[in-house]
Amino acid sequence: MPIVLLQDFIVEEHVKKALEEDIGFGDITTDCLISEDKQIKAKLNTRQNGILCGMNIVEIVFKTLSKDIKITKFYKDGDSIKAGDTIAVIEGSARAILKGERTALNYIQRLSGIATETRKYQTAIGDNKARITDTRKTTPGFRIFEKYAVFIGGARLHRFNLSDCVMIKDNHIQFAGSITNAVNIIRENLSHTHKIEVECDTIEQVKEAINVKADIIMLDNMSCEEMKKSVELIGNKALIEASGNVTIETIEDIAKTGVDVISSSAIVAKAKTLDIALDM
Amino acid sequence: MPIVLLQDFIVEEHVKKALEEDIGFGDITTDCLISEDKQIKAKLNTRQNGILCGMNIVEIVFKTLSKDIKITKFYKDGDSIKAGDTIAVIEGSARAILKGERTALNYIQRLSGIATETRKYQTAIGDNKARITDTRKTTPGFRIFEKYAVFIGGARLHRFNLSDCVMIKDNHIQFAGSITNAVNIIRENLSHTHKIEVECDTIEQVKEAINVKADIIMLDNMSCEEMKKSVELIGNKALIEASGNVTIETIEDIAKTGVDVISSSAIVAKAKTLDIALDM
Amino acid sequence: MPIVLLQDFIVEEHVKKALEEDIGFGDITTDCLISEDKQIKAKLNTRQNGILCGMNIVEIVFKTLSKDIKITKFYKDGDSIKAGDTIAVIEGSARAILKGERTALNYIQRLSGIATETRKYQTAIGDNKARITDTRKTTPGFRIFEKYAVFIGGARLHRFNLSDCVMIKDNHIQFAGSITNAVNIIRENLSHTHKIEVECDTIEQVKEAINVKADIIMLDNMSCEEMKKSVELIGNKALIEASGNVTIETIEDIAKTGVDVISSSAIVAKAKTLDIALDM
Amino acid sequence: MPIVLLQDFIVEEHVKKALEEDIGFGDITTDCLISEDKQIKAKLNTRQNGILCGMNIVEIVFKTLSKDIKITKFYKDGDSIKAGDTIAVIEGSARAILKGERTALNYIQRLSGIATETRKYQTAIGDNKARITDTRKTTPGFRIFEKYAVFIGGARLHRFNLSDCVMIKDNHIQFAGSITNAVNIIRENLSHTHKIEVECDTIEQVKEAINVKADIIMLDNMSCEEMKKSVELIGNKALIEASGNVTIETIEDIAKTGVDVISSSAIVAKAKTLDIALDM
Amino acid sequence: MPIVLLQDFIVEEHVKKALEEDIGFGDITTDCLISEDKQIKAKLNTRQNGILCGMNIVEIVFKTLSKDIKITKFYKDGDSIKAGDTIAVIEGSARAILKGERTALNYIQRLSGIATETRKYQTAIGDNKARITDTRKTTPGFRIFEKYAVFIGGARLHRFNLSDCVMIKDNHIQFAGSITNAVNIIRENLSHTHKIEVECDTIEQVKEAINVKADIIMLDNMSCEEMKKSVELIGNKALIEASGNVTIETIEDIAKTGVDVISSSAIVAKAKTLDIALDM
Amino acid sequence: MPIVLLQDFIVEEHVKKALEEDIGFGDITTDCLISEDKQIKAKLNTRQNGILCGMNIVEIVFKTLSKDIKITKFYKDGDSIKAGDTIAVIEGSARAILKGERTALNYIQRLSGIATETRKYQTAIGDNKARITDTRKTTPGFRIFEKYAVFIGGARLHRFNLSDCVMIKDNHIQFAGSITNAVNIIRENLSHTHKIEVECDTIEQVKEAINVKADIIMLDNMSCEEMKKSVELIGNKALIEASGNVTIETIEDIAKTGVDVISSSAIVAKAKTLDIALDM
Repeated sequence: MPIVLLQDFIVEEHVKKALEEDIGFGDITTDCLISEDKQIKAKLNTRQNGILCGMNIVEIVFKTLSKDIKITKFYKDGDSIKAGDTIAVIEGSARAILKGERTALNYIQRLSGIATETRKYQTAIGDNKARITDTRKTTPGFRIFEKYAVFIGGARLHRFNLSDCVMIKDNHIQFAGSITNAVNIIRENLSHTHKIEVECDTIEQVKEAINVKADIIMLDNMSCEEMKKSVELIGNKALIEASGNVTIETIEDIAKTGVDVISSSAIVAKAKTLDIALDM
Repeated sequence: MPIVLLQDFIVEEHVKKALEEDIGFGDITTDCLISEDKQIKAKLNTRQNGILCGMNIVEIVFKTLSKDIKITKFYKDGDSIKAGDTIAVIEGSARAILKGERTALNYIQRLSGIATETRKYQTAIGDNKARITDTRKTTPGFRIFEKYAVFIGGARLHRFNLSDCVMIKDNHIQFAGSITNAVNIIRENLSHTHKIEVECDTIEQVKEAINVKADIIMLDNMSCEEMKKSVELIGNKALIEASGNVTIETIEDIAKTGVDVISSSAIVAKAKTLDIALDM
Repeated sequence: MPIVLLQDFIVEEHVKKALEEDIGFGDITTDCLISEDKQIKAKLNTRQNGILCGMNIVEIVFKTLSKDIKITKFYKDGDSIKAGDTIAVIEGSARAILKGERTALNYIQRLSGIATETRKYQTAIGDNKARITDTRKTTPGFRIFEKYAVFIGGARLHRFNLSDCVMIKDNHIQFAGSITNAVNIIRENLSHTHKIEVECDTIEQVKEAINVKADIIMLDNMSCEEMKKSVELIGNKALIEASGNVTIETIEDIAKTGVDVISSSAIVAKAKTLDIALDM
Repeated sequence: MPIVLLQDFIVEEHVKKALEEDIGFGDITTDCLISEDKQIKAKLNTRQNGILCGMNIVEIVFKTLSKDIKITKFYKDGDSIKAGDTIAVIEGSARAILKGERTALNYIQRLSGIATETRKYQTAIGDNKARITDTRKTTPGFRIFEKYAVFIGGARLHRFNLSDCVMIKDNHIQFAGSITNAVNIIRENLSHTHKIEVECDTIEQVKEAINVKADIIMLDNMSCEEMKKSVELIGNKALIEASGNVTIETIEDIAKTGVDVISSSAIVAKAKTLDIALDM
Repeated sequence: MPIVLLQDFIVEEHVKKALEEDIGFGDITTDCLISEDKQIKAKLNTRQNGILCGMNIVEIVFKTLSKDIKITKFYKDGDSIKAGDTIAVIEGSARAILKGERTALNYIQRLSGIATETRKYQTAIGDNKARITDTRKTTPGFRIFEKYAVFIGGARLHRFNLSDCVMIKDNHIQFAGSITNAVNIIRENLSHTHKIEVECDTIEQVKEAINVKADIIMLDNMSCEEMKKSVELIGNKALIEASGNVTIETIEDIAKTGVDVISSSAIVAKAKTLDIALDM
Repeated sequence: MPIVLLQDFIVEEHVKKALEEDIGFGDITTDCLISEDKQIKAKLNTRQNGILCGMNIVEIVFKTLSKDIKITKFYKDGDSIKAGDTIAVIEGSARAILKGERTALNYIQRLSGIATETRKYQTAIGDNKARITDTRKTTPGFRIFEKYAVFIGGARLHRFNLSDCVMIKDNHIQFAGSITNAVNIIRENLSHTHKIEVECDTIEQVKEAINVKADIIMLDNMSCEEMKKSVELIGNKALIEASGNVTIETIEDIAKTGVDVISSSAIVAKAKTLDIALDM
């Protein structure tokens, strides 16, 4: 089922700002050398294997520059692409294609890089039921795209921002006095439509979180053994998130502890761009 | 000499958007659990070695949330920091510090990561005269920060966008008929304050670029031998940029060919975030 | 505990737009008749009983026009105020106070009106455990303020927008085939940090929602008897929301059925402004 | 004659912000459950009698989400609609229609509510020549829409903001020394294209305003007898506005005094939303 | 009496955009050569005689770049300044002063040029009662400043935009059938707070405009004799505006016809910048 | 070769703001008198000789108001037009054409005025090789258009803003100690893609600038003899810009000294609007 979390009209505004950033007072090379009526055909090719993400944005970039650009797509977001594959063919105004090239690639290379990294982590989990999930460690002003890419890569989505899920951390617990107090104050005062997640460093905290009926219990920086023990204690009483020390090497062992989701900022923050190019 | 290319009033607008992105309808956890008058002291500590970048932005993040936040800085942008170092102490409203934490870290971790990567590449060049330089391969909407970070890391800055330097590439050459035509058309029509750079794939093209007095000659994807030969041909007649196949392993050999600058998208696109944390 | 869901820096941007809307090319009356250095003292008085909401915004309105305005507050958001009460004294530039008067009152009258209406509904619920909650039926561009006002009035907050809680309605169920399918698809694909609410019109649907472990079950337009029966069926297995036909007359009976929250658009959409004035 | 005071390109910007406010990071329910190619047909039905207002905005909301939405309208702004009437049929992308539903209704329900309230007041005036008119008591950021709705409801428009008509109030008179001084200063200094309105509390003030040739004389909080006397004094020498204590019960008596316009904030501030729904 | 039609908070937003336009990715010269702590003192000197306009904007430009800039002003808006006069002394950060110089001068030179031109026209009118007034022929995005400058120069202000005064022109008359129809339709439908101006080319049209009680009658491109005749016909029944063929040479003769205001786009559109400089 | 430096999507945003500025709460005259379905045909005629500039913007203005407007163009930007020429025919909605008229003319009159003035200066240079060039003395918020107009008028473009060319002036030299120091610091630290221009007041400074290999040497306020001497000294070693005392009378003599470009703010700052009108 094709899923669209990015609305076109929102992407369009972001793309306009990105094009202004890159074009400034004009593409002085292209405008001077290529006349308005020249047409070209360009191929969007990948030079690396990975997961494609950002096709819709690429289309919006070129259409912002010339309404008559025609794009024929051979792959869609979420598809596996292999080095050498032609992802799409773009035809139309040479000026528009040359001016939009860098901006279009800047979106798709980064998003496909994130989707690819995410898929690797999910794959490393193997047959375990756990799912990789992301964090709020994103590039300022670019979160909606990075969240979209991890989703396309196969992650479960963590909260979008500070207002769509309660997350009680160390400092909150200290100010509230205890996990129990913190959860009760929240429950008394705030939204019934938001889940409450509690960050636990110890088995004792896990027990307290279970008692106070937290919706999600985060096991923070625990050893696999502690996690396994926590999973047993929690059972079906809360959703269980593992956090901390998550790498492509450790993730399978973490998954084996039986946790539901494993969060990692690495799938965004450490992802490299995927090498996709526009060949004329 | 402390260099400030980022203007505060521009950063302030970017930071407000970033905070809106992260705060949404409110930090439902913090506002509920911590009262308005609580004060805390937090340390900005690094857990990795690297080059610090983004201190000013961190300050603006917290001051946007509370005018009375006080920041004592022990390092400044461009300084080397070592795992364990305390970079700054932040004191003031607990709410403001907890709400701003993630956004502040998102800026400084990414910018310090880029500055650190850039410094590595520059260091790998050794005693050769070459300087690392960046590209337009940046995150949409975030270029001004990423450019600033590579600058702080020690790179020479390449053009900011399509309007501040002419760059004649393959496609432009094809449309213009030849390098000579392309340069002449540009020179006849456009700004006298902008340099003209020509991308050359072959020695023949290099010769043509020399003849037509290009300001900068880019040696694109050439072998080290071809580059050495080009450098000899060009001498002082143009500034020489090497591009393509630049990695931390190859960069010293490229530098040894005698080129002036070596451009690499990797210092931005492949940089990982630096692990900096806020400890309360 | 004073709760701040509205961030000052976000309010400031909204206030600037509101002042531009009201001032246009200048307050041609005031600027012409009152010189720059005139000072006045004005009292913010209420002429109706109600719940105060929006004090912080009032302060931002006047400070946007003149940094030296001084405001002495006698009540804070959430307080009961009675006709005749002086809420605050505002001193400073006569020009700024006259120009900002209408805009400041437009915020505080509407928000206090909503808070007052909300409190009435909550009060009508009496000793029952139910809590009034709001909907997404808000004024375009003004939701963050209206949500804040219902919160100050004593409501539990419903979801802020379409991305912070799943709400499965008739149409979704039809497209998915059944409630069970809908919930399963969501659970497989989307965020683990978001709750899933299912809108049920019949007891049969309620049973299905229980089976598939919906987090929140909305009883839509049910009779009090149906609701009572549903509440018994659901027990502690989900949070229960009543919706439809909620008026100040019916709400107590609805509450007596044992539901957890009762949602009503009326607390925003039918609220009248509270009569608060600025007397010089 | 169909009158369009709202420009499409201005509405489009407002609608985008409203949709962003409501959609946030995506409609996580709809995008997940309904595929991109599903089409539906929905009817915009009214469940209350009233005056329709906002059809154009509804169209812009849906077209912002999907260019291919088709809307067949059976009524236009200003028409009387009766409970049960189908106002329009909307066909196209199921996703777009479900995502835009709430925002579209938020505009049309509120605007139709205001137009309906306005019409009631105008109708209550009966055969008297007076016309209802509005005030600057509007929702911040939403004035252009609320002004449009009162206009559609049959009101004469009062000034849009502080720069399109001079309005001399108590405080201005005090600072200027007298009504005469105030009007003379304004006339000497300001625009010849703007009318001057003077707020009068007493017959004496009315006489002074007549003498100084005010364009509009506002009778503020006067009894009907005082108003009648003022009307006789003024004759054709100025346009006469009644203000204060205007309710649906008092308005006919006020109109009988012979005033030209009767201003009331109630038509906006006390209007309830009209119950219009989208039935699939 | 010092009149402030420009609100600081509106000017601040305009200035930020202007500074972004001029600074781009940074002032690469100044930031590189001058360290952060350098202080300078600069004099704002005029090299031409004229009317000063824009002091407040100059202050906002520099304070946007550095909050600690100190400005000592010797003249205020509307004052006559003579070549050689020092208008103000600006002290503070050398970087801020050098970066803001061009933008500050761009505002003050243009606004003072307009104020100066306006004063010339008003002076040429001599002892006649007529006042110069402006038009909507302004620079897109800069009207509020240009309107302010003509006001400071001594003009009466014409309407700000299409919504604050009715202006019935040829085309409107044709579509409405006659001046009488046009005025009556407007009066029936629109705001009572807006004046109605009618553009008349002939004496016949003037008579019709008088009959229908237009508030302002514009005599468009008439000879002085026709204008004199029109003035006699109109008497006190309407305000009279002369338009067309207004130059510094013709304006006195036009004024002698007895018209109230004489509108001219030249005071904005043909004004030259006043030569004001910043000397360090 | 048709050159397009203004991107449509950027112009569209500027035009929307300009139309909002001029339309405000609606064109109360036109909307009231002319029905939605009226069509007209209007001719864009010039009443003065000059160089046309801004056709594309005119088209965007009308299309922003009505997508169905049809424009037939007889001339394009850069063409010479003579008094009486019809530049284009505009057909479509009467409302849209009347509402957009003033804004469209405000762009095209000012830009054509600048292009015309520029052409005059270039023509006055005669057969000399010199080219006129512009400065940063532009209207705040309008630079991209004014730069475009001087380009269309035949000027070489000077730097767009402070970040696309280094310009070392008196103050910079003082802070750096000498021209040599200043250039060396810049070269060591900043971009290799930006040229370095040095402002020289004396022959001694010119020699120093030659020695340090400045890319562009500006001869500031020199006599023609000094300029001639400087030109001989510089030869091909740098591009030579003359600045100061440039008028239509002096420019040919300056050109004869052999300089490459002659910069003048007058082509923008002293240009008058070209008289272009829309005749229905």
